[in-house]
Amino acid sequence: MNGEEPLGFATVDHDRASRCGFPEVVFCAGKSPSQCATIARAIAARADRVLCTRVDDATAKALLDALPGASHHAAARCVVFERTPLTRIGLVAVVAAGTADLPVAEEAAVTAEALGCAVERHVDVGVAGLHRLVARLPAIRAARVVVAVAGMDGALPSVLAGLVAIPVIAVPTSTGYGVGQGGLAALAAMLSSCAAGVTCVNIDNGFGAGYAAALVNKSGVAMLRAP
Amino acid sequence: MNGEEPLGFATVDHDRASRCGFPEVVFCAGKSPSQCATIARAIAARADRVLCTRVDDATAKALLDALPGASHHAAARCVVFERTPLTRIGLVAVVAAGTADLPVAEEAAVTAEALGCAVERHVDVGVAGLHRLVARLPAIRAARVVVAVAGMDGALPSVLAGLVAIPVIAVPTSTGYGVGQGGLAALAAMLSSCAAGVTCVNIDNGFGAGYAAALVNKSGVAMLRAP
Amino acid sequence: MNGEEPLGFATVDHDRASRCGFPEVVFCAGKSPSQCATIARAIAARADRVLCTRVDDATAKALLDALPGASHHAAARCVVFERTPLTRIGLVAVVAAGTADLPVAEEAAVTAEALGCAVERHVDVGVAGLHRLVARLPAIRAARVVVAVAGMDGALPSVLAGLVAIPVIAVPTSTGYGVGQGGLAALAAMLSSCAAGVTCVNIDNGFGAGYAAALVNKSGVAMLRAP
Amino acid sequence: MNGEEPLGFATVDHDRASRCGFPEVVFCAGKSPSQCATIARAIAARADRVLCTRVDDATAKALLDALPGASHHAAARCVVFERTPLTRIGLVAVVAAGTADLPVAEEAAVTAEALGCAVERHVDVGVAGLHRLVARLPAIRAARVVVAVAGMDGALPSVLAGLVAIPVIAVPTSTGYGVGQGGLAALAAMLSSCAAGVTCVNIDNGFGAGYAAALVNKSGVAMLRAP
Amino acid sequence: MNGEEPLGFATVDHDRASRCGFPEVVFCAGKSPSQCATIARAIAARADRVLCTRVDDATAKALLDALPGASHHAAARCVVFERTPLTRIGLVAVVAAGTADLPVAEEAAVTAEALGCAVERHVDVGVAGLHRLVARLPAIRAARVVVAVAGMDGALPSVLAGLVAIPVIAVPTSTGYGVGQGGLAALAAMLSSCAAGVTCVNIDNGFGAGYAAALVNKSGVAMLRAP
Amino acid sequence: MNGEEPLGFATVDHDRASRCGFPEVVFCAGKSPSQCATIARAIAARADRVLCTRVDDATAKALLDALPGASHHAAARCVVFERTPLTRIGLVAVVAAGTADLPVAEEAAVTAEALGCAVERHVDVGVAGLHRLVARLPAIRAARVVVAVAGMDGALPSVLAGLVAIPVIAVPTSTGYGVGQGGLAALAAMLSSCAAGVTCVNIDNGFGAGYAAALVNKSGVAMLRAP
Amino acid sequence: MNGEEPLGFATVDHDRASRCGFPEVVFCAGKSPSQCATIARAIAARADRVLCTRVDDATAKALLDALPGASHHAAARCVVFERTPLTRIGLVAVVAAGTADLPVAEEAAVTAEALGCAVERHVDVGVAGLHRLVARLPAIRAARVVVAVAGMDGALPSVLAGLVAIPVIAVPTSTGYGVGQGGLAALAAMLSSCAAGVTCVNIDNGFGAGYAAALVNKSGVAMLRAP
Amino acid sequence: MNGEEPLGFATVDHDRASRCGFPEVVFCAGKSPSQCATIARAIAARADRVLCTRVDDATAKALLDALPGASHHAAARCVVFERTPLTRIGLVAVVAAGTADLPVAEEAAVTAEALGCAVERHVDVGVAGLHRLVARLPAIRAARVVVAVAGMDGALPSVLAGLVAIPVIAVPTSTGYGVGQGGLAALAAMLSSCAAGVTCVNIDNGFGAGYAAALVNKSGVAMLRAP
Repeated sequence: MNGEEPLGFATVDHDRASRCGFPEVVFCAGKSPSQCATIARAIAARADRVLCTRVDDATAKALLDALPGASHHAAARCVVFERTPLTRIGLVAVVAAGTADLPVAEEAAVTAEALGCAVERHVDVGVAGLHRLVARLPAIRAARVVVAVAGMDGALPSVLAGLVAIPVIAVPTSTGYGVGQGGLAALAAMLSSCAAGVTCVNIDNGFGAGYAAALVNKSGVAMLRAP
Repeated sequence: MNGEEPLGFATVDHDRASRCGFPEVVFCAGKSPSQCATIARAIAARADRVLCTRVDDATAKALLDALPGASHHAAARCVVFERTPLTRIGLVAVVAAGTADLPVAEEAAVTAEALGCAVERHVDVGVAGLHRLVARLPAIRAARVVVAVAGMDGALPSVLAGLVAIPVIAVPTSTGYGVGQGGLAALAAMLSSCAAGVTCVNIDNGFGAGYAAALVNKSGVAMLRAP
Repeated sequence: MNGEEPLGFATVDHDRASRCGFPEVVFCAGKSPSQCATIARAIAARADRVLCTRVDDATAKALLDALPGASHHAAARCVVFERTPLTRIGLVAVVAAGTADLPVAEEAAVTAEALGCAVERHVDVGVAGLHRLVARLPAIRAARVVVAVAGMDGALPSVLAGLVAIPVIAVPTSTGYGVGQGGLAALAAMLSSCAAGVTCVNIDNGFGAGYAAALVNKSGVAMLRAP
Repeated sequence: MNGEEPLGFATVDHDRASRCGFPEVVFCAGKSPSQCATIARAIAARADRVLCTRVDDATAKALLDALPGASHHAAARCVVFERTPLTRIGLVAVVAAGTADLPVAEEAAVTAEALGCAVERHVDVGVAGLHRLVARLPAIRAARVVVAVAGMDGALPSVLAGLVAIPVIAVPTSTGYGVGQGGLAALAAMLSSCAAGVTCVNIDNGFGAGYAAALVNKSGVAMLRAP
Repeated sequence: MNGEEPLGFATVDHDRASRCGFPEVVFCAGKSPSQCATIARAIAARADRVLCTRVDDATAKALLDALPGASHHAAARCVVFERTPLTRIGLVAVVAAGTADLPVAEEAAVTAEALGCAVERHVDVGVAGLHRLVARLPAIRAARVVVAVAGMDGALPSVLAGLVAIPVIAVPTSTGYGVGQGGLAALAAMLSSCAAGVTCVNIDNGFGAGYAAALVNKSGVAMLRAP
Repeated sequence: MNGEEPLGFATVDHDRASRCGFPEVVFCAGKSPSQCATIARAIAARADRVLCTRVDDATAKALLDALPGASHHAAARCVVFERTPLTRIGLVAVVAAGTADLPVAEEAAVTAEALGCAVERHVDVGVAGLHRLVARLPAIRAARVVVAVAGMDGALPSVLAGLVAIPVIAVPTSTGYGVGQGGLAALAAMLSSCAAGVTCVNIDNGFGAGYAAALVNKSGVAMLRAP
Repeated sequence: MNGEEPLGFATVDHDRASRCGFPEVVFCAGKSPSQCATIARAIAARADRVLCTRVDDATAKALLDALPGASHHAAARCVVFERTPLTRIGLVAVVAAGTADLPVAEEAAVTAEALGCAVERHVDVGVAGLHRLVARLPAIRAARVVVAVAGMDGALPSVLAGLVAIPVIAVPTSTGYGVGQGGLAALAAMLSSCAAGVTCVNIDNGFGAGYAAALVNKSGVAMLRAP
Repeated sequence: MNGEEPLGFATVDHDRASRCGFPEVVFCAGKSPSQCATIARAIAARADRVLCTRVDDATAKALLDALPGASHHAAARCVVFERTPLTRIGLVAVVAAGTADLPVAEEAAVTAEALGCAVERHVDVGVAGLHRLVARLPAIRAARVVVAVAGMDGALPSVLAGLVAIPVIAVPTSTGYGVGQGGLAALAAMLSSCAAGVTCVNIDNGFGAGYAAALVNKSGVAMLRAP
């Protein structure tokens, strides 16, 4: 298969862009900085954009060296390389329940932007102070999909889904302690949500939520173009 | 110790009323109808009131035979015997998120009433339809303590505690399925609540919530009497 | 709030259709047949369509009596009432890994249809016989969103998401035994998917998947109408 | 909503004091020292008191700089700022089973004091040496509510609730090892308590217990003032 | 090996009495009545005593037919056959926290008696009514080992071990509900006991506790005979 | 793909025999008797042998009607159809720790036989009576692979693997109670085995163990034929 | 109660020696070195011996300063102070499955010695090399009780209990990885042991096993003295 | 038993080679470098080859000093000593799903090589890019057994087993995060695999997989030699 490039420690899947709409994304956790850089360079050799996630400082440095012009989104732990910028279309709302949920929310937002979405962020609007969430509703309802990020009791997506008519992608975070440690309480609550329209990704998986949100956001656009 | 009465299969603790303020309560699950009836009769011989919980139909029949004049609260699975009625004081609000949470909420309400509390019930006011909850806030805020009963994602107590200034006793229920089966998701969410003022009891433990609510409700009254 | 109708054991949320795009759905598990019928009748009094899920035989009978003209989808455990049929637009693909996953897949399909989506079903195309899945790819790629239902090892959504460019909503089922009993192995695998674009709902929650798929499917259509 | 102040990384809820009786509390874990200081300063600009919990040494320094006159309770990991001291009323008993449970017990005690409660501490009175607990009973019974802090087997609240007529708020701690590691054994035991009147908070959540105890303690007082 | 007798579906271990001090015990759960009877008869052919546990009614009937003169202890779910009665020596105290723990406590007591121990039973002496336990202390201290049976919060062995100078064998029971369902809360609490001298057996394993208690009880006696 | 036959509720994979060496196996749990019979008949139309597992009585009847000449192995819950008998080659030893483990051991043995292996069974040779196991060692060592079936503490495979030089396939069973309920203790012990050469299948998965054992057993034979 | 000495952060229980046969033991984990030293000195002021467990290097230094003449058993993480040496009586066998289990086995051995028992150690005699265990059987059978320490699959106590006629106290260790990480696999296997006579302590709780073994070992001796 | 050599902290089992076909393997985790070196030297004194696993840098240095001529496979964390090289026979395929799975895959490969197997590695062929796996199928089918290493959703072995006719030994890795953290999601998925022919080892247990694969690989060879 000609789209497969073996690097010894990795096998780059160059056909992914045509098959799935975006080049292979480099998940950097568990790989060395030089492994990450080698993979990223191999992708950039044949694609116009590269997204690298779970980037620590050493890896960010190696990636910026390997991909001149790439930008490091430190809060999101992402490096994004774009040879040509994408027009950002539609609207993805990213809502975070608390300050400690920001890194995961940023990973979702940066991912959706890298995939060509317009993104609007809403911060610290958890359910313990409901009016903060209610005040943002008009803006959130204008989006085509909402990513709701929360730790602790994970109640935000349930409340949100009862107030809007768009898909809610819930992201539990590992914020918290005791029975909520590691995010399992938030995940269980989100999966058990009694509000319809909520789907869920893995704990702290801001990337997965942003990626799925982008697919939803662009789905309507595609129909606009070719019905 | 003269307050201890051995029945062979059980040992009645007659001193409990003076020590803890209410006679021993009969938890009927795991005991035969005739065991329950024998214990209840022994308590009634020395106390003015008896509360029996987790009462199935056969046990209810045995208890009503043993305690003439007792009443069977079928929805709450309780039998209550009162030789002299208690004046119901203060106010306990019992809030249930969904229709399936009603039996547990009723157990809490009947228990609090048996301990001498005025109780007000609010039904099916879960967070997926927030305005239903908001509409009840004035009534709930008039209470001295609120019992919040919910299954599924268990989000109700978190939302409620952000809206009131009284203690919230959360009761997870075993309503639901999948990761929420058995009530563990609701319990974890309630314990992880990011709203202050929430304490929790075991899954489906309406009795425990009602009992603790009664202690809180009567606490202020006691100070009124003897400051 | 004038959209709230108290029934004693339940509080109907009539504003939900305007707020969320579809009237309140009746989740029948944990409610008596007559409770379900009363709620469904109250909704139908003000809305053109009613969806009831987790319907057992006794409840189905009560619902069909309460909602003349409603149809019972036995395999999906749903009852659907439509005063005026919706035009079914877009395309949702529902893919089931095995024969035992059919009831959950049907619940997803019937839900999406009740919300106005065209739906195509693909049955018994699990990963142990990959060519069966590969043969369906052209049809699946024509959809705007795919619901992937699987129990056991839950590998189907991971494999599928690597082959398509549309959102994949994964539904773990409680099919299986041993460590997979209750569907936890499938759920964990789906949440841990190394393929981007997958979001997940609770175990056996075909309704939730179908509802979210409908929101995604209709999202593009809305833009078509009013950009 | 005029009570909402956006800080970029956080949204301060200034209405909380009027809604819930005490200004927003700053949970410092997962926030940077400067984020904590900024939030605390914003609250202090409009409120007379600020409570910060889970404060490490660097954060304590930043908070003391931001809130001149605040005091650092190192054992409790709290910083408390009071523009005008509150009169401490009622009585909250804080009982700790072992020496290793002291930090959590102190967090509960400092929280209750910050909310205006008189507090009495009882240390190292676990059930393995029952007479130590029995010796403290007269003092504990004089309180309006008791916070019982224990790790390991978590037996203290069960034993205590059988001996007093006031609400017992149980706090499991993460003290211990093996199956008790992380506090899950203590939590499970406390939730399963066979003694009535016990409610529970999350593992190590001294703050939550102290806050709920303060609500209970002040509940009676409120009635004294305005019956 | 001449002590091994194959029965097709089982292989009887006739050397166990000489190796371990008591013939093989027949655990009847998971075996058919006729399988149990065949095994019991094979053991009785070469040994003076047979103990069968987890005996349901059909199996009891088959065993009593197979072993004329055997006795059925229904509350303990045991059948005991003794060709010659053993002198019961030493003293084992069996303490049960609640009425629902009686079947497990009886299994322990009958097992210890079948192995030749004098046994004294103490019923319904849980920690929620401590004085009931304290009243039994002199009798319990006279034993050489105590078996403590409890469900729910499993606090009894911890409290007991702080009050006596003999080994405490803890038996968690599956009594309870919610997080305590299946006995896991009680087991975790017992293993996490902060009182020294406690060892534990599996949930509901009255037989294991009674057997181990008998080994301890007889250990001293053996030294008396042959120092 | 011409090897794929759609049945509506299932899609038969006729290429599996050429791809994997044996026709598709019918796992009957979760399918109706008539679904099982339809699938089995479809496979038999193109293959010389059919193996059906997890067969209850009603399904067995339907299968025997659909596949004249098939045999029902009731203890193994299997139905096997062979148009032409296979010569049974090599040797697979199936060792069961206890009588209650027999159904799972039989499923493994019947599966291996259906795949053309000679099989020898060893029953009730658990580690509590080690000499029973030791007595069987010469016979077990003559096999090319051993399937070790055990519940409870799951110690058999560990002990066995230290005594033989052939692969040990461990099968945990759901025999037992308390912490061992459902087979999780046995599974965890087997996966944690400190003896090299042990691999594991899911709880109660006798089929999986028998199938893998057959692949191992025939692997040597294949080399004999075509090196 | 005159046996109770408050130290501020701890309350020493001086009556424990008369009540339970040995002075309070100092569990040092979770306490500061100076707290440990203060408690140890307070005990030594009224008792002839002090046992401190879970002693790290800094705490050991503080204890040796506080208790001149005490000895530090580094492998066991214990410090033992004896004003007058105890005659070591009876025999406790301590058996460890692997080298990594030695620290826990040593803690058990040192504890039993501190309580006046003769102790014999058997190292690295796990079940993967059965003959090593068999070679030690005569020595082990001479003991009055055996402590069996094992991690990984935890099979040692099951095998041992089938070979001896004395009580087996099983200690799971946190040795291992994967599903055995933290010792849960070993604990579950030991509690599920199919061999009678096994009781269990918490993971890594060498102290608890040694203490219980000492109670058993001395039980017979007491009868020798005062029958 | 003359094959047993006591080293104080360990007991070397010199008979293992004759009993199990390969000398005792040194699992270095939890042992000090000098303990590892002493054990390895003792084995090498009587055997021609020594395999040491879980070797960190300090231990590697000690082993290379103790075993001149040994080689350190750093990626596999193994040290291998061979006095005389083994002819490598048959073929084991080792397939890794991702780059982060390489260390575990290497441990499996080095182990199989140390036991005398020819090994072929296939890297980064996970199911999210199926064509990469399909491209390797001819090479994998030429092996006599395949080791499939994967973390995250653990789907690789299921997909692979549906495509080959040889035994698949699945190794879950601790790669990942959230619900997949520690490898439990991958392990559960592999054990729940709906594809026949899969057996499993513990998380990250590359050694166990390589050892079992070697037994399978050599099984055919033995028959070739001595049918």
